[in-house]
Amino acid sequence: MKPILESTVVVVGLGLMGGSLAGALRGRCRKVVGVARRSETINQAVSQGLIDAGTTCIESGLREADIVVLATPVRTIVELVRSIGPILPEGAVLIDLGSTKEEIMNAMGGLPAHVQPLGAHPMCGKELFGIGAADPHLYRGKTFILVPLPRTAPETIDVGRDLARSLGGVPLVLDDARRHDFLVGTLSHLPYLLACALVRTADATTSQDPVAWEIVASGFRDTSRVAASDVDMMTDIILTNRDEILKALQEYGSHLRLLEGLVKEGDEKELKEALSYVRGKRKEMFP
Amino acid sequence: MKPILESTVVVVGLGLMGGSLAGALRGRCRKVVGVARRSETINQAVSQGLIDAGTTCIESGLREADIVVLATPVRTIVELVRSIGPILPEGAVLIDLGSTKEEIMNAMGGLPAHVQPLGAHPMCGKELFGIGAADPHLYRGKTFILVPLPRTAPETIDVGRDLARSLGGVPLVLDDARRHDFLVGTLSHLPYLLACALVRTADATTSQDPVAWEIVASGFRDTSRVAASDVDMMTDIILTNRDEILKALQEYGSHLRLLEGLVKEGDEKELKEALSYVRGKRKEMFP
Repeated sequence: MKPILESTVVVVGLGLMGGSLAGALRGRCRKVVGVARRSETINQAVSQGLIDAGTTCIESGLREADIVVLATPVRTIVELVRSIGPILPEGAVLIDLGSTKEEIMNAMGGLPAHVQPLGAHPMCGKELFGIGAADPHLYRGKTFILVPLPRTAPETIDVGRDLARSLGGVPLVLDDARRHDFLVGTLSHLPYLLACALVRTADATTSQDPVAWEIVASGFRDTSRVAASDVDMMTDIILTNRDEILKALQEYGSHLRLLEGLVKEGDEKELKEALSYVRGKRKEMFP
Repeated sequence: MKPILESTVVVVGLGLMGGSLAGALRGRCRKVVGVARRSETINQAVSQGLIDAGTTCIESGLREADIVVLATPVRTIVELVRSIGPILPEGAVLIDLGSTKEEIMNAMGGLPAHVQPLGAHPMCGKELFGIGAADPHLYRGKTFILVPLPRTAPETIDVGRDLARSLGGVPLVLDDARRHDFLVGTLSHLPYLLACALVRTADATTSQDPVAWEIVASGFRDTSRVAASDVDMMTDIILTNRDEILKALQEYGSHLRLLEGLVKEGDEKELKEALSYVRGKRKEMFP
C-alpha cells in the first residue's frame, strides 16, 4: 500500500471537517482533490489553499484516488458508501469521518472486495461549520478514532494511523462500532441534548427579562455551547444513534431526579456528599 | 460619603472572590484589610500582595471600616449580617458578594440604622477557589450586580458603582432580590445541576470503559465544567434558592422530555425544526 506522501487523497464534502482535513494534508501527500456539490465551495477551497484540485463530479473526482475520505453528514456517508463502491479504483482505502459508526460500518461491510474500508471519527468538532471555518490545525492533538471491520487489512489500519498523524492527531483503534456509538451517545450526543433543553428553558423563562443576558455568566455559556452545533449534522447523528441516546437520556434522567430530590429535601449533609462525589469525578475525568 | 480612594475597605473572607477583590482594590483605596478565620490565609494574602493588613479577629478588623465586603458562602453572609451590625462604625457601607440575594437582603433589612446596606453579585465565578486562585483581574469586564434595599441611600449605590468600576467591572443595579434569584436560578444554578447529573451519568456508564476519557471531546468537557465548582459555595447557593431552582428544574424537565420524544419518534423534519429553533436562540443569546 502506498505511503500517504505518495497518495492522492480525495475528500468528499468540504465543510469544517473535510476542508480542515484537506488543508492539513496538502503538501503531506501527492495531491488533495476536493469534491463538493457546489462549485462555489470548490472555488473557495482553492482560494483558501485547502485543495490542489476540485470537482463537483464525484465520478471524475474518485478516478485517481488512493484514499477517499467521506466528510459529509452521517446519512449522506451511508448513501455514498452504498453507491460509490463499484467506481472506486482497485485497492482504494475508503475512510469516513462520521460521528456515529454502526450504520456506516454496516454499509461498509457491503463494499466490493477491491475496496478497503476503514471507519474514523476525529474528536474535534466545534459549533462552527462550513468551508469558511476550515482550519488545518483542527485535528492537532485530538484523538482520531479508527474503526476497522474484520475484513480491513492491517496495512489499511496503518494507513489510517499515518493519516491521523499527518493531521497532527492521535490515532486510537476501536474495533467495535457499537461500543463507539455507546460511548459517544453519552459523551457527546447527550451533552448536546442537555444544552438544547437548557437553551429552551432560558428562552421560555428568563429571556423575557431584558437584563438576563447582561447577567449571564460563563457557566451558562459553556454549558449551552454545543446547542449552537450544525443542525443537519446533529440530526443525522441523532437519527443514526437513537437507541444509545435514548438509553443515555434515561440514565441521565434518573440522576437528575436524584439531585432534584436532594434539593427538595434540603438535607445539607446529603447534598454536600452528592456534590462532592460529582466534583471528585469531574476532576478525575479532567485532571 | 468618602470616595473609594480615601476609604478603608475590609474584606471578610479571603477566598477566590474576596482575595481577588482585595488585590484589585489595593492601591485604589486608602487601605485594604483582610479578615479570615485562619492566620495562614492572612499570611498568604499578605505574601501574595492582596491586602495591606489582616486579622483573624473580625471585631478589630471592622473597627476602622468605611466599606465592609462580605465574601464568604451565602449562609455565612446571612449569619454575619445578623451579628456584626452593632459593631460596624457609623455610616459604614455593608456590601456582600453572595450568589443568591433574597435571604441576604432580608437579613440586611434588619441592620441597625447607622449602617448602609447594599447587596452585590459579581458574575465572575470560576471552578477554582481559595486564596491561591485569587486574581486581581477576575472582575474585569464582568457584570457586577448591585441590589439596594429601599433604605439604601443613592450615595451608597454610587459607592457600589465606584467599587465595581475600581475592580474593572460593569455595575448593574437590580433592585429586586427575588428577580435576581429567579434569573440566576435558571442562568447559573440550573446549569450547575445539569452538569452534575451529566458527570454522574458518565460515571455510572461510559467511565467503565477505559477508552472513554481518551475519546471525550470538548462538548462534554464544556457542558460539565461547572460540576467542578466549590461544593460548600454551591450547597449554600442551592439551600438559599431552592424554590427558584426547583421551578427551573421543572421547566427544564419538560423541555428535555419534549426533545426525548422527538428523538424517539425520529421525525426528521420536526427534529430539525426544534434543533434549528434552539440553535437560533443560542446564537441570539451569545452573538
